[in-house]
Formats: sequence, structure tokens, C-alpha cells
Amino acid sequence: MSTQPETAYDDSNVFAKILRGELPCHKVYENDDVLAFMDIMPRGDGHCLVIPKSAARNWLDASAHQLASVAEAAQLIARAAMKAFKADGITIQQFNEPAGGQVVFHLHVHVIPRFDGVPLRPHTGEMADQAQLAQHAETLRAALPG
Amino acid sequence: MSTQPETAYDDSNVFAKILRGELPCHKVYENDDVLAFMDIMPRGDGHCLVIPKSAARNWLDASAHQLASVAEAAQLIARAAMKAFKADGITIQQFNEPAGGQVVFHLHVHVIPRFDGVPLRPHTGEMADQAQLAQHAETLRAALPG
Repeated sequence: MSTQPETAYDDSNVFAKILRGELPCHKVYENDDVLAFMDIMPRGDGHCLVIPKSAARNWLDASAHQLASVAEAAQLIARAAMKAFKADGITIQQFNEPAGGQVVFHLHVHVIPRFDGVPLRPHTGEMADQAQLAQHAETLRAALPG
Repeated sequence: MSTQPETAYDDSNVFAKILRGELPCHKVYENDDVLAFMDIMPRGDGHCLVIPKSAARNWLDASAHQLASVAEAAQLIARAAMKAFKADGITIQQFNEPAGGQVVFHLHVHVIPRFDGVPLRPHTGEMADQAQLAQHAETLRAALPG
């Protein structure tokens, strides 16, 4: 067990590459502070990620502004997902450090639409169908406030 | 599947009772906006809940101020938990509506200390030992900024 959290930010992570345009994403929403896009290994249909555009490793080292802007965008996406997918609920998850479930070391919040009786899908490590992800992104975008 | 999120707030929920002093809690932290206390059915040692003092059913109907103040307090607790319990990580969860995992209908964020190789405990529905919860609350309080 470590006595110090590991808070270094390494900009070679995949979300930093998405932010720099070096990797593609199925974008759902962005403003000056945040970007939201589809998780390519969704735990459920419509699983979306919200990240700050500025550097933060996770919740532990984020600024108050990063926390607030990510929290507010997660609400925007959650509300859109309820409407877009006629979801029955939303599970929000945020993982910090490997022991906490974190795999990509740029702060991200999972917004997962949930349906009565449908459990979260296990992590298979397999990417979802790109056409389906694109369709889910389009469905979510259409449900955002105009 | 419902087409409308259920956003009514019913102040007979147990967290509203804790806020009114009608039920006890193992308090960790409070300020004008939020209260943090130990989850009595912890998924891991040191599992703490952060709630707004004002009424909100969940993330879907919360105000921007409620989201920001809860998010910031969750960071305060997460940082304290890393230090207090020499944790290796933190898992943050927030559930909306029964399909999303919500059981108590007052907005709350789960802050769960994590340790390498230790999975989350299953929901057993059994309360933890009160003396242990009191000790964990004390350990967390001692790790908060002075």
C-alpha cells in the first residue's frame, strides 16, 4: 500500500490523444471546459465518458473548476441519456488509480444508461461496433438541449 | 421503460432524517452545503457518503451548486481516505433511480477506499459493526485538512 497518491499527469494517455485530435472519438458534446464521447468498451448501450479538456489525472488532483464543469456536463449527458434511450436510470462511476478501477490516467466520469432488469455488461476488453457507437452518439446529441 | 425520469423528492427518506437529526450517523465532515458520513453497509472499509444538505433526489435534478459542492466534498473525503487508510485508490459511484442502483432517494455520492487486490464487498444488506464505523469516521476526520 502506498502512502502517497500517484498524481503525475502523463499526456501520452489515449484521452489526451483524443483531445489533441490524434485519435478519433464519437463525440457527443463539448464546451470550453469538457468533452463527452462514447466509451468504446461500453458496459451498457449509450455508455458515455465526460472528461476535462485540461490536464488532470483523476478526481484526487482535479481543480474545483474541473470537478464542477465535469459534474455539470455529466448531468447534461445523464439527462439526455434518460430521454434519448428511454432509460430507467443512470449509473455514474469514476475511478481513481489502478486499485480504484482506473485504466486511462486522464480524469473521466462514466455515465451509463440503465434499464430495469439489465445488469452492467462485464469488461470484455473488446471494442463495440463502430457503427453502433456512432448511432448512439447521434441519438444522445439529438437529445441535448438545443 | 419510463419516458420521464422520476424526479419527485420525498423527505421521508433516511438521509433527510439524518439531516433533520431524527436518525444518527457517523459524521465525517460538514459545511454549509454538504454532509459526509459513513455508509452503514460499506462495500469496503472507510466507505463514506457525501450528500447535499438541501433537497435533491439524485444527479438528474440537482442544481449546479449542489453538484459542485458535492463533487468538491467528495474530493476532500477521497484525499483524506487515501491518507487515513493508506488506500491505493478510490472508487466513486453515484446511482440514479432504482435501475441505476439507487436505494435512498436523496442525492448521494459513494467514496470508497480501495486496496490492491481487494474487490468491493457484495451488498449483503447487513449493517457493519457500529464501533468499527465510529473508528473509521474518526480516522477519516483526523486526515481532513486542519
